[in-house]
Amino acid sequence: MSNETHLDISGIFNPESIAVVGATPKEGKIGNTLLKNISSFRGKAKEKAKVRIYAVNPKYDEIFDVKCHPSVSQIEEAVELVVVAVPAVSVPEVLEQCGKKGIKNVVVISAGFKEAGREGAMLESELIRISDKYCLNLVGPNCLGIINTHVGLNATFGKTTPARGNVAFLSQSGAFALAVIDWAKTANVGFSKVVSLGNKAVLDECDFIEFLAKDNETEVITIYLEDVRAGRRFMDVVRRITKTKPVVVMKSGRTEAGAKAASSHTGSIAGSSEAFSTAFQQAGVVEVNSINDLFDFSLTLSRIRGIKGGIAIVTNSGGPGVMAADAIEESGLELAAFDRETIEKLRDLRVANFYNPVDVMGDADSDKFGTALGIVAADENVGAIIAILSPTAPIEFDKAGDYVLDLNAKKPIVPVFMGGETVMQPVERFKKHGITNYFDPVRAVKALYAVAKYSASREKAPAPPPRFKVDRKAIEKLMEIREREESKLGVGVEGFKVLEAYGIPVPSYGKAESAEEALEIADRIGYPVSMKIVSPDIVHKTDVGCVKLNVGREAVKEAFFEILHRAEKYTSARRIDGILVQQMVGGGKEVIVGMKRDTHFGPLIMFGLGGIYVEVFKDLSFRIAPLSKDDAMEMIKSVKAYRLLRGVRGEQMSDIESLVNVLLRFSQLCMDFPEILEADLNPVKVFEQGKGCCAIDLKMAIGKK
Amino acid sequence: MSNETHLDISGIFNPESIAVVGATPKEGKIGNTLLKNISSFRGKAKEKAKVRIYAVNPKYDEIFDVKCHPSVSQIEEAVELVVVAVPAVSVPEVLEQCGKKGIKNVVVISAGFKEAGREGAMLESELIRISDKYCLNLVGPNCLGIINTHVGLNATFGKTTPARGNVAFLSQSGAFALAVIDWAKTANVGFSKVVSLGNKAVLDECDFIEFLAKDNETEVITIYLEDVRAGRRFMDVVRRITKTKPVVVMKSGRTEAGAKAASSHTGSIAGSSEAFSTAFQQAGVVEVNSINDLFDFSLTLSRIRGIKGGIAIVTNSGGPGVMAADAIEESGLELAAFDRETIEKLRDLRVANFYNPVDVMGDADSDKFGTALGIVAADENVGAIIAILSPTAPIEFDKAGDYVLDLNAKKPIVPVFMGGETVMQPVERFKKHGITNYFDPVRAVKALYAVAKYSASREKAPAPPPRFKVDRKAIEKLMEIREREESKLGVGVEGFKVLEAYGIPVPSYGKAESAEEALEIADRIGYPVSMKIVSPDIVHKTDVGCVKLNVGREAVKEAFFEILHRAEKYTSARRIDGILVQQMVGGGKEVIVGMKRDTHFGPLIMFGLGGIYVEVFKDLSFRIAPLSKDDAMEMIKSVKAYRLLRGVRGEQMSDIESLVNVLLRFSQLCMDFPEILEADLNPVKVFEQGKGCCAIDLKMAIGKK
Repeated sequence: MSNETHLDISGIFNPESIAVVGATPKEGKIGNTLLKNISSFRGKAKEKAKVRIYAVNPKYDEIFDVKCHPSVSQIEEAVELVVVAVPAVSVPEVLEQCGKKGIKNVVVISAGFKEAGREGAMLESELIRISDKYCLNLVGPNCLGIINTHVGLNATFGKTTPARGNVAFLSQSGAFALAVIDWAKTANVGFSKVVSLGNKAVLDECDFIEFLAKDNETEVITIYLEDVRAGRRFMDVVRRITKTKPVVVMKSGRTEAGAKAASSHTGSIAGSSEAFSTAFQQAGVVEVNSINDLFDFSLTLSRIRGIKGGIAIVTNSGGPGVMAADAIEESGLELAAFDRETIEKLRDLRVANFYNPVDVMGDADSDKFGTALGIVAADENVGAIIAILSPTAPIEFDKAGDYVLDLNAKKPIVPVFMGGETVMQPVERFKKHGITNYFDPVRAVKALYAVAKYSASREKAPAPPPRFKVDRKAIEKLMEIREREESKLGVGVEGFKVLEAYGIPVPSYGKAESAEEALEIADRIGYPVSMKIVSPDIVHKTDVGCVKLNVGREAVKEAFFEILHRAEKYTSARRIDGILVQQMVGGGKEVIVGMKRDTHFGPLIMFGLGGIYVEVFKDLSFRIAPLSKDDAMEMIKSVKAYRLLRGVRGEQMSDIESLVNVLLRFSQLCMDFPEILEADLNPVKVFEQGKGCCAIDLKMAIGKK
Repeated sequence: MSNETHLDISGIFNPESIAVVGATPKEGKIGNTLLKNISSFRGKAKEKAKVRIYAVNPKYDEIFDVKCHPSVSQIEEAVELVVVAVPAVSVPEVLEQCGKKGIKNVVVISAGFKEAGREGAMLESELIRISDKYCLNLVGPNCLGIINTHVGLNATFGKTTPARGNVAFLSQSGAFALAVIDWAKTANVGFSKVVSLGNKAVLDECDFIEFLAKDNETEVITIYLEDVRAGRRFMDVVRRITKTKPVVVMKSGRTEAGAKAASSHTGSIAGSSEAFSTAFQQAGVVEVNSINDLFDFSLTLSRIRGIKGGIAIVTNSGGPGVMAADAIEESGLELAAFDRETIEKLRDLRVANFYNPVDVMGDADSDKFGTALGIVAADENVGAIIAILSPTAPIEFDKAGDYVLDLNAKKPIVPVFMGGETVMQPVERFKKHGITNYFDPVRAVKALYAVAKYSASREKAPAPPPRFKVDRKAIEKLMEIREREESKLGVGVEGFKVLEAYGIPVPSYGKAESAEEALEIADRIGYPVSMKIVSPDIVHKTDVGCVKLNVGREAVKEAFFEILHRAEKYTSARRIDGILVQQMVGGGKEVIVGMKRDTHFGPLIMFGLGGIYVEVFKDLSFRIAPLSKDDAMEMIKSVKAYRLLRGVRGEQMSDIESLVNVLLRFSQLCMDFPEILEADLNPVKVFEQGKGCCAIDLKMAIGKK
């Protein structure tokens, strides 16, 4: 459905009539549980009494007290939602009937499609074809179903319905959704909607994200993903929506040993995992790597969207207070510095420490604790409070809970009431107010850090990528030649032409096919020069002695023959295109600018300082093209070695501006020519401020357009 | 008690007679809860019927049904354990009475000592004095008390007694201990012993660790620490004990903003946090940074001590299986590669993936899951199994739990039964067998990683530090001069003498007080030379132009005057000792070797590659001296930039052997002279293999012995 951004799928979650195809009175069958779950929808709320439910199964006239029809066609109305749980082979026929009847929303529970091999995949294509024909909003196939807690609709075959809440949960794994629903019920965690995405044959994560963005009952969209169906669309949709609602994603399969052959440096470093993380970051997604974090962060974001100020800690026990302070320091969050007034009030209250963390001490009762909370909450420097309580004798937890609930309206408070049975009452009350309690102060801090990260990314103003005037035609011509010759545009001279056409500075150069020509070129460029073999068959030119640096006039001819000799020895009868004679570029700092075209997201641009910084420290930054000026600047600034470009020990600052320019033009090049699969500008030499930069060498891998 | 390593404190945990001083019938008072808790000890087990319990309080004859005495002196026997809950001022008198009566074990619950300011601190000294006089084993003061679940002794004023278990828990925070006990009760987590360490006036963590090491009911020692009382002893004791029992520590206060003035590079980098982490690592401690990890790791280590082979994942749902695989890959653990036989058996079982992770699929029942578990458990390549189950319809969790319990005897299995209510029955059964279930596969992986780390550190054979023949006398003389002159042994020439005395190679040098002398020295050394100011008042010599490099014969005199001129301009009337004329050392790679004397642990040695690697990447390694040869080698190999020393792109390997030699000699120097507070050898130049290394510059801060 990637072309329709304003799809109306509300009927899936708020239908006035539902049919269950494959309903059965046989206990334990999916069609049985489904019908039972959906039946209970009828009486859920008074105004929903009008909801009409039908069973479909040729074998029965009635199941429970639900009227049963032999087929969808024979139901007396075009129901708003059809849930299908018949064998895979029968699903296309059901869809046809739905389409003909003008039914729009179908959830296909049935498995046996793409996930089950070639035949299943063919069946799934059939579902897509029929859905396209009738514009069906199809969920699944191979899914658990959907839940809308706010109207009491459970259209899944799970046994449990979670409580109401304001977090929507999308899961690409049905089994994981089952586990989460079961856990949530016991843990008393609520959801607004639950969607099992299944094979995403028609509706995918983006369609549901778009819908949930407008859903008043949803404050946070929480997703377990295994892949995305359309990477660029995902980025566009989510980037827009995270401006108003947080999207929290756990993506599995980050470390697939998918070591595909990569011809460039960038290609070998930038895996699909980097692409996903980069795309998530650019789109403002809060990415997590564990189930704990997935729900800790989602639940906290469902009530706290931003933190304006530092974090205050109020505690009745020093130890856990320091644990929280450690975690705050280590996460990069800031401990609030209190106003003079706050400090004086705390001093009057006789607490052990009236700076942050505030320790009211073990002999404090709930009132003292609550008073301290109140003083801190009134301080303008405080953005959020972590309220830590150990179960000491003087503490009445119910009362302490009251203080948290009262003051939470003033300043976001994350309670860390530490204990089991003793703290259960307030913890359950917190839950009713959408507030999560933590036993571990470190988890509370991590959740607040997620809030801070989200709100920082939300505040970033998006800027459009610039478009430079370039000589696109020149490259198109080169690409055509390459396509005819069925060879890759490699290390050679054409590469430099490509860069020149896009305004990326390169040293003066020429390709020589004879020693005389080499001398002519060198004379034109000026001395010294570098000389390198031009051959698509020699990747590591230096290693085989096919590079000569700092060649003076007297040595040009000798160098020409020597390089040629070595190349011939190395490549035997293979292709040699000539020798590149290039201006020697002295000084400057070496950086690498690279690109790998990611299957899902397109050109993934990489930046880093050259050599050791990349190889040993993996000190790199990534962005998905096209880059805005801010993107390019951020890429440069976010590598640790940026300090080297800024200049250490009295050095001049490097020409960052010109480097931004190279990144932006390189980004445009990668966007304009999808046939460029991988590319390295390595090294790019950056000179002192005002003196520009220069791409010294280039590698490219070209594929079919 | 740091001098007595074979202290008998068993009476604290297994007393045959107990007195509660400060017992009272008044509800809500500490002395009331204490007596109640201890009274219930009497009838716990039949053979304990002989335990005699006494109350002490001049106001009563009997409290509950416990005989009450006016003072400890008047009890008819020297009880084995006295628990004291009277106001702080009265505690010394109680201790005196205990001592006189020959009582050995006292737990002082009372607060109002060191933690309460100067007067309290004086009272605490009094406790220490009396304890020393009578050799009292004193726990506390200012503590919650102690628990021994295996005999049913709860000598705390907390309301809850945890279940029996095989993890001993020591806590420096009483409030945190309270919270943990309360949580543990609800979560059904058991402990063998709980000790609230309090102010550690007499007995400290080491005394309890020593005791628990020999305690048959304790498999893991879990500690919450805020500091250690005697760092070196802690290291010695724990290093020995972690060879047989895991010690898991959470230390708070890692990020104290204790930015103390530091005169050396090492001093400014190596904080108390590095010292603690380094000491923990060297002693084989499993260090954690969150409460979750503290108990996750402890509980897992209490039944799994090592993993011989890779990790296998068996799951009924792909998603969570991949989550676990991601976490394994990212942690550095290894996924098991199965035998051919295993793969064939799994193929016959018709699972979706018969490589790792093994996916038995959503339609599998418990038997299929259990069979897959059995096949995998029989594979010799598998060291541990993560058994993941989502609550799909066909799974009977009780049955699946049986499989886990049966097979766990064969191979350690970490269950990840995902859900709430649905999985509760097997989860509780697991607990009874000491097995922790996780909802989040990522936590299961983290716990196994802790096991792997522990077992790797346990297998390390300790080696004694070497002793080199050195000229200790020479340095002693220098130190004496310095002490007389009340100045620090700084950048000057004496520094090189120190290094020479300890066999650390330095370039040829001499100190010149006139231009003629400079020329003489330079002639002796050979050209070119470097020339540097010698002045305790100039730290950043290069910045003020007081360093000249590559000076040829013709320029020596001029350089002498120029440096002197600049130095005088900079320091005005301050002290200038002359000019250092030094051999220019070309080539080699620059590393930094440094030391900061940590308050708790002594000399903390630092190693890293020079300049940018330290400043930008913080690519450093630390060890507490004395170093063994293995330590030194590990320090060098564990920095990322080690690759540079090994040689990149066809370079020769650096002389690692000679660098090890420098580290070891430097370690000996730091051990021999406690008056050296901080020292930097920066840079040390390392040449190609066989060509040695050389300390170019030195900074030292000297204090009183």
